[in-house]
Amino acid sequence: MAKKVLIVGGVAGGASAAARLRRLDENAEIVMFERGPHISYANCGLPYYIGETIQDRSKLLVQTPESMKARFNLDIRIHSEVTRIDADAKTVTVNSKEKGVYKESYDYLILSPGAKPLKPPIPGIDSRLVYTLRTIPDMDRIKSHADQAGIRSAIVVGGGYIGVEMADNLRHRGLEVTLVEAAPHILAPFDSEMAAFAEKELEDNGVRLLLGDGVHSFVEKEGGIAVMLQSGKEACGDMVILAIGVAPDTGFLKDSGIRLGPRGHILVNESMQTDCDGVYAVGDAVEIVDYVTRQPSAIPLAGPANKQGRVAADHICGLPSTYKGTQGTAIIKLFDLAGASTGSNERTLSRLGIPYRTVYVHPSSHAAYYPGAKPIALKLIFNDEGKILGAQAFGAEGVDKRIDVIAAVLRMNGTVDDLAELELAYAPPFSSAKDPVNMAGYLAQNVLSGRSDVATLQELGSFDPERQILLDVRTKAEFDQGHIEGARHIPVDELRARCGELEQGKEIYAYCAVGMRGYIASRILQQKGFAVKNVTGGYRSYSMARYAPRN
Amino acid sequence: MAKKVLIVGGVAGGASAAARLRRLDENAEIVMFERGPHISYANCGLPYYIGETIQDRSKLLVQTPESMKARFNLDIRIHSEVTRIDADAKTVTVNSKEKGVYKESYDYLILSPGAKPLKPPIPGIDSRLVYTLRTIPDMDRIKSHADQAGIRSAIVVGGGYIGVEMADNLRHRGLEVTLVEAAPHILAPFDSEMAAFAEKELEDNGVRLLLGDGVHSFVEKEGGIAVMLQSGKEACGDMVILAIGVAPDTGFLKDSGIRLGPRGHILVNESMQTDCDGVYAVGDAVEIVDYVTRQPSAIPLAGPANKQGRVAADHICGLPSTYKGTQGTAIIKLFDLAGASTGSNERTLSRLGIPYRTVYVHPSSHAAYYPGAKPIALKLIFNDEGKILGAQAFGAEGVDKRIDVIAAVLRMNGTVDDLAELELAYAPPFSSAKDPVNMAGYLAQNVLSGRSDVATLQELGSFDPERQILLDVRTKAEFDQGHIEGARHIPVDELRARCGELEQGKEIYAYCAVGMRGYIASRILQQKGFAVKNVTGGYRSYSMARYAPRN
Ligand SMILES: Cc1cc2nc3c(=O)[nH]c(=O)nc-3n(C[C@H](O)[C@H](O)[C@H](O)COP(=O)(O)OP(=O)(O)OC[C@H]3O[C@@H](n4cnc5c(N)ncnc54)[C@H](O)[C@@H]3O)c2cc1C
Ligand SMILES: Cc1cc2nc3c(=O)[nH]c(=O)nc-3n(C[C@H](O)[C@H](O)[C@H](O)COP(=O)(O)OP(=O)(O)OC[C@H]3O[C@@H](n4cnc5c(N)ncnc54)[C@H](O)[C@@H]3O)c2cc1C
Ligand SMILES: CC(C)(COP(=O)(O)OP(=O)(O)OC[C@H]1O[C@@H](n2cnc3c(N)ncnc32)[C@H](O)[C@@H]1OP(=O)(O)O)[C@@H](O)C(=O)NCCC(=O)NCCS
Ligand SMILES: CC(C)(COP(=O)(O)OP(=O)(O)OC[C@H]1O[C@@H](n2cnc3c(N)ncnc32)[C@H](O)[C@@H]1OP(=O)(O)O)[C@@H](O)C(=O)NCCC(=O)NCCS
Repeated sequence: MAKKVLIVGGVAGGASAAARLRRLDENAEIVMFERGPHISYANCGLPYYIGETIQDRSKLLVQTPESMKARFNLDIRIHSEVTRIDADAKTVTVNSKEKGVYKESYDYLILSPGAKPLKPPIPGIDSRLVYTLRTIPDMDRIKSHADQAGIRSAIVVGGGYIGVEMADNLRHRGLEVTLVEAAPHILAPFDSEMAAFAEKELEDNGVRLLLGDGVHSFVEKEGGIAVMLQSGKEACGDMVILAIGVAPDTGFLKDSGIRLGPRGHILVNESMQTDCDGVYAVGDAVEIVDYVTRQPSAIPLAGPANKQGRVAADHICGLPSTYKGTQGTAIIKLFDLAGASTGSNERTLSRLGIPYRTVYVHPSSHAAYYPGAKPIALKLIFNDEGKILGAQAFGAEGVDKRIDVIAAVLRMNGTVDDLAELELAYAPPFSSAKDPVNMAGYLAQNVLSGRSDVATLQELGSFDPERQILLDVRTKAEFDQGHIEGARHIPVDELRARCGELEQGKEIYAYCAVGMRGYIASRILQQKGFAVKNVTGGYRSYSMARYAPRN
Repeated sequence: MAKKVLIVGGVAGGASAAARLRRLDENAEIVMFERGPHISYANCGLPYYIGETIQDRSKLLVQTPESMKARFNLDIRIHSEVTRIDADAKTVTVNSKEKGVYKESYDYLILSPGAKPLKPPIPGIDSRLVYTLRTIPDMDRIKSHADQAGIRSAIVVGGGYIGVEMADNLRHRGLEVTLVEAAPHILAPFDSEMAAFAEKELEDNGVRLLLGDGVHSFVEKEGGIAVMLQSGKEACGDMVILAIGVAPDTGFLKDSGIRLGPRGHILVNESMQTDCDGVYAVGDAVEIVDYVTRQPSAIPLAGPANKQGRVAADHICGLPSTYKGTQGTAIIKLFDLAGASTGSNERTLSRLGIPYRTVYVHPSSHAAYYPGAKPIALKLIFNDEGKILGAQAFGAEGVDKRIDVIAAVLRMNGTVDDLAELELAYAPPFSSAKDPVNMAGYLAQNVLSGRSDVATLQELGSFDPERQILLDVRTKAEFDQGHIEGARHIPVDELRARCGELEQGKEIYAYCAVGMRGYIASRILQQKGFAVKNVTGGYRSYSMARYAPRN
């Protein structure tokens, strides 16, 4: 007999599961319930339509109910909210705009309800001038407000991916934008000194940043709205975009017997099955395993949602696909910069007590002698066995490529030796004979083998001139333009001749612009009997770690 | 005692080895011999200086003898050709412009003499109007000829990477360019139907292509030069660039006892050691193992040369680094297009009798709804166990990234399942929730599992209307704009209703624009009991496979 599959939620996870199910089983009865008016839309494109980079609204509707029905022979029911699940009876209760409340039975049920924007009980949060962004109607509301005559400024609350994309896009359409973030830095997937690249880019493009300051209340004022901050500061504008994170949209599962995690995520196994017979769940609403740390986690991203939808469909049709965890590979464009990361950051690893090491390189996106090369700041995190734990990068060009390559090697459980040996495509417009990824691998090899001790920026914090020497090995011109306070100066090319000037008993911290000459200096000094460390990432990483927005 | 290392050749492999040696051993005596006037120059940038994309000549000199001596404390001897090696006595004979002929002894010797352009004994090949490109002086000669008043046209002989880059660059500076290639297609690392993308791009940018036609002779004429072809055709121009391949520059090793391969390449082991004590060899001059086929091969590329130089230096200093083979990852920019490949192509696999399968996808470089998305033509080659054997891609954006990711997975001995599961960075400006690489993995999984039989373009060649149906499942508008001769037409969205029109006994070849709707059609028909194959790559791959230059 044909199986009957109900799907709750008709966008990333739900629509992907439906399409794959149909391809696998022409005879299944497939019903897709969607609360809203649209299915299969490009959530990720919403900020860019508001920002007018995407101009054709219809392009965001990847499939309409009609087109998807024609292609996949699905029973698609929009304006239909699933309000209850009876896992014993294998039925769901539907509240339909058209047909009222009714029940529908299933053999299999796939839940992909996604997540909803967080709206904590902050005074004034229900103001009509405070917007959140998740759906096409949300987008339409924000855009039509911004389109009104006289709208000149906006305050974005929350410096996650969506908040930062909104800041970029609102600026793109000419608004004055203030970004408020309660944490000391934006973009939590990045460590602070890397997030600083994003903060600088936002500031350089006219976004006012208020970091480390939470919202106390929202107050409507003179046709606009004021955001009152914990610090007593106040930011005023014509509208607020609230983007402080999401929570799984799983309220309707409360009495279903389906097991939820501490923050309301649906618990599933490798096949995306819940603990109730025939019930699967995918997407932003589920708890997954972190691929690197193997800890339970929730990473609300479109790639995982789509993949999980496919796995659930496979499993229902008897295929052995599994979902092996999410490593959190993500990317954001901000103005002319891209920031991307994969795997764990230092914050997570420290919290979990997982030992790790870090190195920085700042290579060019492609051969420096070919026009248009841009620096990439690349941070690699790995353990004592050389296993890759994570990577983060910022730059104007080629950041996506390097993080994707490292993400692939991480997925294959590779090591820094693998990075060093990768054979990547090289011609001058695209890369260097030693790709930035190779370079990060080399550096990590040198660190692990003890050929090059590196000092992290944190270590520099406890610098003690009695026992240590901070040595700038750049050229005189570079040194004169700015250096770390207390540094002595011997250009690397003079070091062999002048190392007698250094006290043998002291530990030397050598640094250059990005770490490369510092490394060579450290090799020279180490072999001359000095205790020496190279400040990884050099003056560039050092400067970014101390970057503070003007506000 | 300090070891004494001599290095022959001061560019990619040689200079990399020298720099790494010094970093590992501050005390070694390192002498680098270079026949020409420059060391450490960017061979790969030469065409772009001729084409005036790179305007500052000094940028091509990554290191000068002075700068490299200052940084690495090397004894650098330019204008010094090593003419003989006595492996028993451990000496080399040097012919120096400055010091005449002398001998130098070594503990270790690293050979990185590179390769030289092929110049077969074709009548007229020694004309002053026939240029080859390998060194800075070669470049200067070509550029100064092209800079002369009245120079309007050039003929490039050879459609390999260097020939095609020269055609692009000469066109870029406004010359009329004809490209002559003896094989039926240019760019041998690509299979013919993929090379067609490059041929079309060249033609679209005004390069005249003469394919499948060898050079019979060169004849100087009226201040210019005529290239007489085997076919009797004649191409005339103001200069000829000869770029028909390279041969290892190992003539000086003839009586050295160092073992050479059939085409003159130096034979080495995993540590880059030759069979003579203390003698290493790296770069274009060596025979390596093909990473995919494990056959001996020679792949003259800068990335491998640099890496091998580092391995040789490591081994001399007692580190256990090894070189595990070259997979031939390479990339070329041609006008607005990029073409890249990794691993083996069909031609190589067929020749070696290695079974393989192929699929094509034509996804967008990034989310189609975000401006600027460009199609990527991606071909994946894998075996029955799903192991990746190779990949090729053409497109205006994001080709380097996809080939690098696949190259990484290939290097890790990964499978198509790995490609399907990769978690790559997604935001609309950079990719899609299902990255092109994931997509290629999905498709390959479907093929291997038998869920989707694909027909390759070759198979279509033997199409028999008696037994088979060619079925176009695109829209009417697409069908009317052009379709494969003999095809019947049922749009995929009508197929469920109209499949009764198809004769059950016949095998169906379904196709669409790129393969995606053809796949869905094939799933519908297969489950309705038809024998069906999806033409992989669809009409787009079909059209490119039939592309023929106008000349
Ligand atoms: C503005 C924005 C930008 C983003 N940008 C990116 C990006 O660049 N990259 C990236 O990887 N990810 C991005 N994401 C995240 C990505 O969109 C989500 O991870 C993905 O859509 C999750 O898929 P899902 O199926 O779990 O949920 P959704 O795609 O949200 O779909 C859930 C659907 O279920 C419906 N629903 C919920 N409950 C019920 C119910 N009880 N009954 C019926 N229907 C119900 C909802 O109406 C909704 O339409 C972005 C998200 C947003 C909002
Ligand atoms: C125009 C051009 C474009 C290229 N583009 C690319 C590209 O985009 N990507 C890519 O990966 N590769 C490219 N390559 C190939 C790349 O440059 C080579 O693979 C690489 O340089 C090989 O390094 P090598 O050390 O073996 O030889 P080389 O770099 O050629 O160095 C060899 C040196 O040894 C010297 N020498 C030879 N014999 C002796 C002797 N007996 N005594 C003293 N000195 C001697 C030579 O004068 C030469 O300078 C390109 C090459 C050329 C010519
Ligand atoms: C539109 C949507 C329903 C499509 O789902 P889908 O059909 O599974 O996905 P795609 O359109 O990418 O097609 C992928 C399928 O085509 C196949 N395919 C792709 N290119 C192919 C080709 N050239 N030849 C043959 N098959 C091909 C793949 O193998 C895959 O099929 P499989 O899963 O059966 O192996 C779903 O992705 C969606 O709703 N997207 C919008 C919502 C969303 O994702 N939002 C978040 C991101 S903005
Ligand atoms: C210029 C040349 C001599 C440099 O050789 P090199 O010093 O080995 O290579 P690079 O300059 O890329 O530096 C790489 C080294 O710096 C280290 N490094 C790079 N960035 C670093 C950083 N931020 N911090 C610390 N170390 C760093 C790497 O680990 C590596 O050292 P290792 O090999 O000891 O591990 C050589 O590449 C050359 O001659 N190139 C031109 C010729 C050529 O390659 N032509 C073909 C391509 S056009």
